[in-house]
Amino acid sequence: MNKNEVLFQEIIVQVNALIDSEKIVDLNEYIDELHPRDISEILVDLQEEKQIRLFEILPLEVAAKVLDDLDSDMFTTILSKISIDHKKRILDLMSQDDMVDILSDLSEEKRHEIINLLDKELAQDIKELLVYDEDSAGGIMTTDFVVLSKDITCYAAIEYLRENAPDAETIYYVYVVDKNDKLVGVISLRELIVSRPNTIIEDVMSEKVIDVNVNDDQEEVARIVSKYDLLAIPVTDINGKIRGIITVDDIIDVIQEEATEDIYKFAGTSEAESEYLEDIKFFPKVISAVKARLPWLLITLIGGTLSARILGKYETTIKAYAAVSFFMPLLTGMGGNVGTQSSTLTVRGLATGHIDQKNALKTITQEMSIGLTVGLICSLIICIVAYLWIGDFKLGIVVGIAMAANMLTAATIGTLVPIVFKRLGVDPAVASAPFISTTLDITGLTIYFTLTTALLLKFS
Amino acid sequence: MNKNEVLFQEIIVQVNALIDSEKIVDLNEYIDELHPRDISEILVDLQEEKQIRLFEILPLEVAAKVLDDLDSDMFTTILSKISIDHKKRILDLMSQDDMVDILSDLSEEKRHEIINLLDKELAQDIKELLVYDEDSAGGIMTTDFVVLSKDITCYAAIEYLRENAPDAETIYYVYVVDKNDKLVGVISLRELIVSRPNTIIEDVMSEKVIDVNVNDDQEEVARIVSKYDLLAIPVTDINGKIRGIITVDDIIDVIQEEATEDIYKFAGTSEAESEYLEDIKFFPKVISAVKARLPWLLITLIGGTLSARILGKYETTIKAYAAVSFFMPLLTGMGGNVGTQSSTLTVRGLATGHIDQKNALKTITQEMSIGLTVGLICSLIICIVAYLWIGDFKLGIVVGIAMAANMLTAATIGTLVPIVFKRLGVDPAVASAPFISTTLDITGLTIYFTLTTALLLKFS
Repeated sequence: MNKNEVLFQEIIVQVNALIDSEKIVDLNEYIDELHPRDISEILVDLQEEKQIRLFEILPLEVAAKVLDDLDSDMFTTILSKISIDHKKRILDLMSQDDMVDILSDLSEEKRHEIINLLDKELAQDIKELLVYDEDSAGGIMTTDFVVLSKDITCYAAIEYLRENAPDAETIYYVYVVDKNDKLVGVISLRELIVSRPNTIIEDVMSEKVIDVNVNDDQEEVARIVSKYDLLAIPVTDINGKIRGIITVDDIIDVIQEEATEDIYKFAGTSEAESEYLEDIKFFPKVISAVKARLPWLLITLIGGTLSARILGKYETTIKAYAAVSFFMPLLTGMGGNVGTQSSTLTVRGLATGHIDQKNALKTITQEMSIGLTVGLICSLIICIVAYLWIGDFKLGIVVGIAMAANMLTAATIGTLVPIVFKRLGVDPAVASAPFISTTLDITGLTIYFTLTTALLLKFS
Repeated sequence: MNKNEVLFQEIIVQVNALIDSEKIVDLNEYIDELHPRDISEILVDLQEEKQIRLFEILPLEVAAKVLDDLDSDMFTTILSKISIDHKKRILDLMSQDDMVDILSDLSEEKRHEIINLLDKELAQDIKELLVYDEDSAGGIMTTDFVVLSKDITCYAAIEYLRENAPDAETIYYVYVVDKNDKLVGVISLRELIVSRPNTIIEDVMSEKVIDVNVNDDQEEVARIVSKYDLLAIPVTDINGKIRGIITVDDIIDVIQEEATEDIYKFAGTSEAESEYLEDIKFFPKVISAVKARLPWLLITLIGGTLSARILGKYETTIKAYAAVSFFMPLLTGMGGNVGTQSSTLTVRGLATGHIDQKNALKTITQEMSIGLTVGLICSLIICIVAYLWIGDFKLGIVVGIAMAANMLTAATIGTLVPIVFKRLGVDPAVASAPFISTTLDITGLTIYFTLTTALLLKFS
């Protein structure tokens, strides 16, 4: 446990003690010092009955922010225990995009139950947002935003924000629309303030507004926000009408989610697992994990069977030189590692844009040079080890040569496969560890046994 | 190439044509429509001589933003070709944190050369920032920020921002200090605007300001900014004095950098490689990659030698039943995959906080159940395959049992090792693919040969 975890455990103990001793005033004071995000974390750690005790004393605004952070299970549990009236007031204060996130994980029935509690306008917004794909710009945007008409003055604009700002999720960028609600520009709150009060918005706004379409993939949205260092990005429909905005805090969530997905894919399991990381129960979770992982294991199963068939052809060699087979795991292990190193760098490089079609050849040459260098070093070591241990100089040389050849091949295939996949329009992440190491087992064993059979026969 | 790449290639062709035909006015107009970030990308793609032609016509502010995005090599190349006077004016407009990033990659001599061109105050700031560790809060912060005194009115504050804002990197959060420059609160620009003009800052500011220390690790800073959805975070020294701020765009860079590092570590190579992904030349790059990867390969080399020794003990079994050895790559491959899947999920879960000491036991049970399930499915398949192919029912059963046992062990070790490492204070990422698969090769082969030798002898 690091410092933060220790501190957190102390807070939990304190909160539990205050609830147990019914010191509600003290609890109130204590909780008042904490950030809503911390209160959510505390809540998750309490017993169910205490969760309600704590939640009920939270000020409405804090309670709404706490709900924003909960997963759909906790959300339902908490709401089922408080009065309808209290529930209504809190729900109306929740952040739209977070509510949509939670609602989309609920059953149809429960979703309707919640939506029916909302005020009419909010209910309408939420229903509209629920239509979009969860991973699209529409699925992560909020409709809590303010727009300015291009014809008003900066003074009027600031007055307008002063009155309408409390409802909006962010006003650091204010989007400017024409009379048809078409997005025509953007002005930052900062520019509004430093401009002369009687200037017309149209004259100071920037017309170069970067926007995304409601159907754009969230990964593409994250790429744009991160590239242009934006705090928010407007989301428009096909007619150029602004439909919502996405703020940078949601983009950070997307980036982290996508990184986790990439890492999972790489290990040969799907993103389906990450989505349910905390939410679901034991057995459904095991089953969904099995479903996600089994396809990759079947690839290895088929590959391994192929390897077995190849080895079958060299039965004579194995019977004559059993020592040759002793080095098989070493050979496949080394090939697998070198291949995984190269393929990981390539897949990540393609994802971040550091590797593209332009420098693909350079990357391949580089990885081949690296593979050859580490291959020669390791083969020299294994020559010596094999000689000292088995006392068979011939075998040492053969294993060494096979290993160097194998590692060079592994680096080449590890780099080439993701690049070729990308070119063919296949997700390079498919060239994951299981896929690459299975492929390399087959090529590696073929190289090894072709070489050993040929060389050992020659030497004999 | 996707749509964006095609678009980008068209822009490059256009820019090249305009430079070739010396249509400077048209080029100016064309470039004026582009975001500085796009101009940086275009610049990187041009021939050196054309780079200067394009850079020279950029307005000073745009030129400064373009420099912000370049790597240290391009930065030096471009600056070496333009007049000292022009250089001075552009450098003074650069973003401080980006300049520090670039300067820290330059040689001592070149760094001094650049710093000597800066205006005195900026030079002082930059020198101070260069002292901090590159991966610390101090290393990524900027000193381009404004603070407000707690005693002034909101009206005076807005007036102050109006005058001083253009210099500051962000003013969306304004930090409030007492007369000793100690950080005492924060107020958002939005709150400033919606407050009554004659309110004293101290009465409307929030005292719950979340800050970090100059020496805090950038990863910890990113965790805090992302947890609390901040747009910027103040950086204080040991006396609580504010020394700088870090904006969310830099946090996004940190998050992406750390994700890449995690992925690299996972594949058994160090973060050292990622830092130099684009910057350095061919040979130094190959050498640094070899240095980063070799340690992991040596682990496999030692593990593989151990495997070979273990197999040596079963020479009789192998000579008698060569078919047993045919299934070795399949056994180790399956074990490696299952182990990699479990360890990846665990390492990532520990990094994101989804797995902690509290639910560690649950995670282990879950992964063991998953390992057992996939193990039973795969072993059933391989029983049938071995029987159909080799026609040896005994061997099929033996291989099947060994595989199920092996996959269960692999899932257990893959989950347990990172959790134990974390508990011991070792970076769980050390339990990377090479480490896990090498360990599993050894346990897997031991299980396989113990079982096959025992069972085949029994059956015979």
